[in-house]
Amino acid sequence: MNIGLLVIGNELTSGMTQDTNSSFAAGQLNAQGWIVSAVMAVGDDAGAVKGALDYLLGVSDALIVMGGLGPTVDDITTACIAGAFGLSLYTDRPVLKRLKARFAGFNIPWTENNAKQAIFPEGALILNNPAGTACGFCLEQSGKPIIVIPGVPAEARRMMVEGVIPLLAERLGSREQILKRTIKVFRLTESRIDQELSEIDLNIPGVGIGFYPRFPQINLVITSRGTDAAMAKDNLKVAEQRIAGRIGDCIFGYDDETMEGVVARLLTDRGLTLAVAESCTGGLITDRLTDVPGSSLFLERGVVVYSNASKVDLLGVPASVIEKHGAVSKETAVLMAEGVRRLGGTDIGLATTGIAGPAGGTEEKPVGTVFVALSSGEGTACRRYQFRWDRRRNKEISAQIALDMLRRALTGGMETIDGTTSAYYGKICRSSW
Amino acid sequence: MNIGLLVIGNELTSGMTQDTNSSFAAGQLNAQGWIVSAVMAVGDDAGAVKGALDYLLGVSDALIVMGGLGPTVDDITTACIAGAFGLSLYTDRPVLKRLKARFAGFNIPWTENNAKQAIFPEGALILNNPAGTACGFCLEQSGKPIIVIPGVPAEARRMMVEGVIPLLAERLGSREQILKRTIKVFRLTESRIDQELSEIDLNIPGVGIGFYPRFPQINLVITSRGTDAAMAKDNLKVAEQRIAGRIGDCIFGYDDETMEGVVARLLTDRGLTLAVAESCTGGLITDRLTDVPGSSLFLERGVVVYSNASKVDLLGVPASVIEKHGAVSKETAVLMAEGVRRLGGTDIGLATTGIAGPAGGTEEKPVGTVFVALSSGEGTACRRYQFRWDRRRNKEISAQIALDMLRRALTGGMETIDGTTSAYYGKICRSSW
Repeated sequence: MNIGLLVIGNELTSGMTQDTNSSFAAGQLNAQGWIVSAVMAVGDDAGAVKGALDYLLGVSDALIVMGGLGPTVDDITTACIAGAFGLSLYTDRPVLKRLKARFAGFNIPWTENNAKQAIFPEGALILNNPAGTACGFCLEQSGKPIIVIPGVPAEARRMMVEGVIPLLAERLGSREQILKRTIKVFRLTESRIDQELSEIDLNIPGVGIGFYPRFPQINLVITSRGTDAAMAKDNLKVAEQRIAGRIGDCIFGYDDETMEGVVARLLTDRGLTLAVAESCTGGLITDRLTDVPGSSLFLERGVVVYSNASKVDLLGVPASVIEKHGAVSKETAVLMAEGVRRLGGTDIGLATTGIAGPAGGTEEKPVGTVFVALSSGEGTACRRYQFRWDRRRNKEISAQIALDMLRRALTGGMETIDGTTSAYYGKICRSSW
Repeated sequence: MNIGLLVIGNELTSGMTQDTNSSFAAGQLNAQGWIVSAVMAVGDDAGAVKGALDYLLGVSDALIVMGGLGPTVDDITTACIAGAFGLSLYTDRPVLKRLKARFAGFNIPWTENNAKQAIFPEGALILNNPAGTACGFCLEQSGKPIIVIPGVPAEARRMMVEGVIPLLAERLGSREQILKRTIKVFRLTESRIDQELSEIDLNIPGVGIGFYPRFPQINLVITSRGTDAAMAKDNLKVAEQRIAGRIGDCIFGYDDETMEGVVARLLTDRGLTLAVAESCTGGLITDRLTDVPGSSLFLERGVVVYSNASKVDLLGVPASVIEKHGAVSKETAVLMAEGVRRLGGTDIGLATTGIAGPAGGTEEKPVGTVFVALSSGEGTACRRYQFRWDRRRNKEISAQIALDMLRRALTGGMETIDGTTSAYYGKICRSSW
């Protein structure tokens, strides 16, 4: 089954707004075993909308149209679509009544422009919007369903999952199974992973592997398709095991798992507590960890020690060490991790200090120099890294590598090397950082 | 001039990768006064590529094609395009030589699949790629330029700006001016802004206003078009002044400015120092502030006080206050701001404490309850907010509102009200939060 996607709005063709709906919708459709024939974005222009509808109907078995159902004058989708198919418009009284009740319930004054959201093409099946005011609708042209939903991302997403997919499944009938598994890899470049995978047999029927770089990590997506669901599942499992056998050392999670989520689970499961001292990462490590619900169970404190005085005050790093070795040094990083662990009374202390850029580099310690230290009851490990990104990306990769260092320590994979110049990590991980 | 955009890749039509190139390209083209006729995304399929090329050539004066120029087997764009227009392919020796030299220069072993990046359709003008290995190229069909560039975002962006736009300007000739100004608004909902703007005269020739919600803020974009650049500029200025006259209280920046950048500039310009104590925001405030180069000039320290013990240790909040009023309370927030300011020895102390969710709410203090406190030499202000988002968004809006509270204090706009229940802010800002 081929599905066409059309997103409508001048904000999309002018580059003002990044369309994320069509990507989300494509992922949903793909997971059902349907193919997206094409995605089109056109402006709020009746001619452009009609041209796109005609093209997409020619190459698709069904169409999903998103955007332009709101109350303002530039919301022209309903009128455009009705015009394109020669349908008249009507106001749906029950929808209008619900709309007004909704406004009253939220104590928002009713304005007449909102009545526009109760207007539909004749013969449309109205689709409920569980997350907003503008309903969607479904038409049929030449036996092909055309489903129209709002463009507000939170609304579009819920309606895709709860309304559009079930409706399409009902209209389009049964389908091939496509199973997916995402493997999350950190510390290997894309080309290095490609090279490693070329050494193993991944020639498994119906199985494909995709590379999806998500800085600073790479997501590998295995897809397995087939009409026999059990066989597709087995094939997926075989591919996953072979990949894990080759680069397992650099796999930190699967599917929806995040690095911070994995670290949080490892800490929580073992009842361990953590304190974090951040200089160059500026709070990003604790920001990520506190995105995980229940992080108060393990996170005792974080300190962002931007000034030397704060490193002395909050971590007990002697001013003489900072003066002698610099705030960005192995010595300072080690004392930061040990200090925050001691003062927080936690099982583990994690610390970063570095030069995120764009200024502040020296010949000996150029921009991108970062020290990460990890202290536990067993000792303290410190590693020096040299990154080569902009300020934000240097922060992001430093936070990720600190979390990964902790993850490896918690899973027994970390050597407690007091190394200061290694840009590499372990045997398999000879990437460029 | 109408330009069509085509992005190619199974990763786009399967929803694996979010296409950001076409949005960037559309913005660049729009700024030149060109119209994007349609954006299309199709998979790595020769038939789909041909169909899309034909459609877009029918509605456009020029085409930009992105993606699928890399070395791997799924990079089929060059072959597809040559096939679609009946052109043969050849290996360009100078490009091949440069490619090999580049690999040698980076000490990366040469593999034969990379030679694919030196293959072009006969007659193509080769476009240099300053940021990567895959060159672009330009063909002409029926007098219409077709420009093909790689899909790697960093490469696509540089090539758009440095290669594609100048080439199109040369091929397509002169154009109308479009000037833009982005006004960044916080604390007003979209509908509230709409209502405020309906009260002023924005009926200015060639001027349009667009709303672009970027949670937790709204960006208003004024566009002014015309062949007379000076008049377009004047019209833009008039619109900007009228909008600022109406909702100026809630405008925190313009164009590329960010809330953290504005706050950083205000602090740096006045030589003021800041210490931040975060509970529910988990380090997000200092993460944002340290994204600004030079933030070490004003940021003395940040503390992420997730445990009650850390609030006592790092901020001097008496345990009895936490016990009596709770960690999430006006009393604790005020003492956090005062404590971090005192212990950091800074001019200003900023603090957040709240319940980000999904758990931890009570009837009196439901999920989304957040207290923000600001302490300076003049006293301490504290406000209570009630948000209604998910955990991440509650963190984001709390961090933004804390930074905005500081911004307002620094620009003289903050009343030092010790209010605890106001969900609103000032006269103009009666939004829902």
